[in-house]
Amino acid sequence: MNDRILDPRLRDRVMTAGEAAQLIQPGMTVAMSGFTGAGYPKAVPQALAARMEQSAGEGRPFRIKVLTGASTAPELDGALAKVEGMELRLPYQSDPNVRERINAGTLNYIDIHLSHVAQHTWFGFFGDIDVAVIEVAGIREDGLLIPSSSVGNNKTWLEQADKVILEVNRWQPAALEGMHDIYYGTALPPGRKPIPLVKPDDRIGEPYLRVEPARIIAVVETDAPDRNSAFSPPDEASRQIARHLLDFLDHEVQRGRLTDRLLPLQSGVGNIANAVLAGLSEGGYKGLAAYTEVIQDGMLGLLKNGTLRMASATSFSLSPAGIEEFNANVGFYRERILLRPQEISNHPELIRRLGCIAMNGMIEADIYGNVNSTHIAGSRIMNGIGGSGDFARNGYLSVFMSPSTAKGGKISGIVPMASHVDHTEHDTMVIVTEQGLADLRGLAPKQRARLIIERCAHPDYRPMLQDYFDRACANSYGKHTPHLLGEALSWHQRFVDTGSMRGA
Amino acid sequence: MNDRILDPRLRDRVMTAGEAAQLIQPGMTVAMSGFTGAGYPKAVPQALAARMEQSAGEGRPFRIKVLTGASTAPELDGALAKVEGMELRLPYQSDPNVRERINAGTLNYIDIHLSHVAQHTWFGFFGDIDVAVIEVAGIREDGLLIPSSSVGNNKTWLEQADKVILEVNRWQPAALEGMHDIYYGTALPPGRKPIPLVKPDDRIGEPYLRVEPARIIAVVETDAPDRNSAFSPPDEASRQIARHLLDFLDHEVQRGRLTDRLLPLQSGVGNIANAVLAGLSEGGYKGLAAYTEVIQDGMLGLLKNGTLRMASATSFSLSPAGIEEFNANVGFYRERILLRPQEISNHPELIRRLGCIAMNGMIEADIYGNVNSTHIAGSRIMNGIGGSGDFARNGYLSVFMSPSTAKGGKISGIVPMASHVDHTEHDTMVIVTEQGLADLRGLAPKQRARLIIERCAHPDYRPMLQDYFDRACANSYGKHTPHLLGEALSWHQRFVDTGSMRGA
Repeated sequence: MNDRILDPRLRDRVMTAGEAAQLIQPGMTVAMSGFTGAGYPKAVPQALAARMEQSAGEGRPFRIKVLTGASTAPELDGALAKVEGMELRLPYQSDPNVRERINAGTLNYIDIHLSHVAQHTWFGFFGDIDVAVIEVAGIREDGLLIPSSSVGNNKTWLEQADKVILEVNRWQPAALEGMHDIYYGTALPPGRKPIPLVKPDDRIGEPYLRVEPARIIAVVETDAPDRNSAFSPPDEASRQIARHLLDFLDHEVQRGRLTDRLLPLQSGVGNIANAVLAGLSEGGYKGLAAYTEVIQDGMLGLLKNGTLRMASATSFSLSPAGIEEFNANVGFYRERILLRPQEISNHPELIRRLGCIAMNGMIEADIYGNVNSTHIAGSRIMNGIGGSGDFARNGYLSVFMSPSTAKGGKISGIVPMASHVDHTEHDTMVIVTEQGLADLRGLAPKQRARLIIERCAHPDYRPMLQDYFDRACANSYGKHTPHLLGEALSWHQRFVDTGSMRGA
Repeated sequence: MNDRILDPRLRDRVMTAGEAAQLIQPGMTVAMSGFTGAGYPKAVPQALAARMEQSAGEGRPFRIKVLTGASTAPELDGALAKVEGMELRLPYQSDPNVRERINAGTLNYIDIHLSHVAQHTWFGFFGDIDVAVIEVAGIREDGLLIPSSSVGNNKTWLEQADKVILEVNRWQPAALEGMHDIYYGTALPPGRKPIPLVKPDDRIGEPYLRVEPARIIAVVETDAPDRNSAFSPPDEASRQIARHLLDFLDHEVQRGRLTDRLLPLQSGVGNIANAVLAGLSEGGYKGLAAYTEVIQDGMLGLLKNGTLRMASATSFSLSPAGIEEFNANVGFYRERILLRPQEISNHPELIRRLGCIAMNGMIEADIYGNVNSTHIAGSRIMNGIGGSGDFARNGYLSVFMSPSTAKGGKISGIVPMASHVDHTEHDTMVIVTEQGLADLRGLAPKQRARLIIERCAHPDYRPMLQDYFDRACANSYGKHTPHLLGEALSWHQRFVDTGSMRGA
C-alpha cells in the first residue's frame, strides 16, 4: 500500500508508466504539469517516447501537441523531442533538443505570455485538451490532490482535460502539503470578479487541487527528483549588474519614491537574478516580499536572514542542497512560502495592484529601449518570453538586464535595432549591463539612445553605436526614432555571416 | 454673474485667458485636459502661445512640457507647436504641426500606454506638475467641478499640480452633469485595492471632480466648441474590413465561444471602427455594451436602436450633428453613457476582467503578426500607441485592422518585418484587411505567415511576400521565425527611396 495514494476509489487505476502511456494516442493534445524544471511528470512522458519511437520505426509517426506550465526537463521535453514526438509545443521551453527542432523548422512552437495560457485554454483557443498528465505529491483519502513542487497550469489542465493521468512522486517532500494556495474563483467573462489578493502574503484559495475521480484514467507511482540543477555562484558581470541595480534602488529610496521595504520583487531565473538577490541582502534590506514565478536556492537564504519576509511563486525549483536545507527547516519555510497557479502569480490585475519591481534578463536591447527576450538574430528562438511581459507591462518598475556582450565579445547586447521585439519601447523603464544603468523613465527616444549608448554599451561597441545614431539623426526618414533601414539589422547579419557583430 | 461659476470663493480669481497665461512660466510642466479633440482648454493655450511668440521674438525662447489625456486640437497642440512652445509632449498627439516638429527632431515626444500616464505621474516618473489647465463644464457652489466632454487624466492633474487654472466652457452641454463617474479609490502601491467594477455599467465613483480652492489660481470663462470634426460615412474598404470581422464574430457565436451579447466592445476611432459598429447594427446584434475610450456619433445611433445597451468611455467626441442629436434626447443618452478617467477606461485589471473585444487600427502588420501602430518606415511617428496596447494585451480578443494598401497602393499594410513594433506577436490574435481575415490564435509563426499572406495581403504584394517567406524558410539563420536580415526592411527602404514599396 502506497501511503501517498490514499483514495480507495483510485486503487484499481494504479498502473505502470508504460500502461498509462498506452492511453495517449497520436494527434492528441496533452497538457502536462511542470514549471522551470519542477513538478513535471517523470515517467509517463519517457514511456510515451519509447512508444513513439517504436511506432515511428514501424512507419507510423506518432506525434502529439504538448502544453505545460513552462519549461520542463530532459525526461519530458528532451525525451519527446528526441523521438520527434511533438508537432506543437507551448507556452515556453528551454530544452536543447526542443530548441534544435524548433529552429530546424520541424516543430511548431507558440511563445505565449504565461498569464495568458490558462485563460486561452478556457476560451477554447487551443482546442480540446484530450489528456492531462500531472505530477502530484500525493492523493488524499477524500480524493483531493496534494500539489507538487510547481503549480503552473495544473488547475486548468485538471479541469479542462477529458482524461487525467496522475503521477504520484514520493520524492517530493511531504512538507509541500499546505504550502499551496489554489484559487478557484476564476471565471469566464462576463462572470469575472475582482481577485481578492491585496498583499503577496494573502491566501485566497485552497491547499489542494480538485479533480473528479471519474476522469482519472491512470495513477502512476514515481520516486524521482526534479531537474534540480546545482546552484552556481554569480560571476563578476552579474555582480556588477546587481551593483548598478542596487545603487539605483537605493537612489529611489533616497528620493522617497520607494520605502526601504521596496515593493514586491519579481526576478527572473539565473545568475544575474541570484546576484541581485544576494546584493539586496548585503545592502541591509529587511522584510521584503517576493511576488514572482520561481523560488530558487538563493531565496531560502534571504528568507532565513530576514531580507525576505515571504515569497509567493508558482514553482519551487531547488538544487539538491536547497532541498536538504528546506527539509531541515520545513517549519520555518512553510510559513513563508506560497505556491500559486501561474495565472495568479502572473496576473496583470495583481502585478499592477501590488506594484511589482520586475527584473528580467534579455538577449538584447536596442538604442531606443526595445527589448528582445527570445530570438537570436531575429529568427532563432532561445527559450521564450515566459512571464517577463506580464511583469514588465504591469509592474511599478520594469528592469531588463544582460551583460553588454556575449560569446566572448562577438555579440553586443546593445544593438541599433532589436532583431525581434518582445517588450516595446512603451514597456521598458530601466536597462542594465555590467557597464552601467540607463533610467529611461520620462525620456523621448533620442534621449534614451544617448543614455543607453553611454551607460550600457560595451566600450568595444560604443563608437559603432554612436556612429550609427549620429548618422541616423542626420539622414533618417523621420527623426523621432532615427534609423537607417539598410543598416539597422546589419550587425545581426554580420554575426550570421562571420560569427561576430564586429565583423572579420 | 456666470451661472456656470457658482462657488463664491472663486469670484476674485476670474480673469482673462491672457491674464491666466501670465501665470505659466518657461520650463514649467503643464498638464492639460483633453482627449481626442474633446474637453481641452480652448483659450489659455492660445493666449500662452501669443506670449511665447512675443518672448521668442525678444530673444527669450519660451517652452514648456505638455501632458494631456490624449490628442487635443489646433487651439492647443497646434497653437503651441507653431510657436515652438513645447520641449516635451506626452502621451499622445495627432496634430499635424506637432507631428511635423517631432519628425524634424525638434520636439521630444514620449509615446505612452494611456493607462500608464496617471500612475507614472503619481509615481513621480515625470517630475512635478507645475500647473494644470483643465476645461470643466461648470463649478458648483460647493466647489465641486462638473467635468467636461472628456475626463482623461483630469483627476490626476487636479490632484498633482501645484496650481490649477480652470476654463469653464459654457458651450459644453449642461446635461453633461451627472454623466461622469470619477473613481477616487486609486492609491499608490502597496495600498492598492481591487477596483470594484464588474460590469461596464457599474458606477464606482462620483459625478464630480474635486480640487481644493486654494490651489486654483485662475478661472477663465469660455464659450467655444470642441474640435468636433464632421462624421464621414465609411468607405468601401472599411465596409469590407467590417464585413470580415462581423463574419468572424458570427462564427465565434456559432461555435459557442461567444454569446450573441458578445463581450464589451472597445473600438478605435475613425472610419473602420464606424463601419464595424454599423455592421453590428445591421447584423441584428442587440443589447451589447461598449467599454472603450471614445464615444463618437456612430454610437449614438447604436444606443438609440438598441444595438448597444450602454457605453462607457473617457471622451465624448461628437460632431455638430451629434451634439444636436444628444441635446435633443438628453434624457435617453444620459442613462446609457458613462464617462470615466482614462486610468479606469483603460485599466488592465478591468479590461481583463470584462474580457473586452479590442478592435484597433494599425499602420502595418508583418507576416508573423507583429503590429506597428505608430511609425512610418520605422522612424517617422504618426500619432501614438494610445490605448491600443491596454486593450490588445488584456482583452478577450485582440483585433488589428487596416486596408491592405495605402497611398494608392504604394504602401503595403502587410510587410516582411514590421519597421517598428508596438504590439508583439504575443499580443495579436486577429489581423483584418479588406482582402480578408487571419485568425492567428493557436498558430506558430510560420503558420501565421502563410495565413496572413493568403488572407490579408493585397494581390499586388502577395507574390512578393510569398517569395520573401519561401526564401526565408530556406535560408534563414533560424527557422522558427524565418527572416532574411538584409531584406527584412527593404520594402520600407524602397518606399523611402522611391515613394513606393513596389519600387520604380
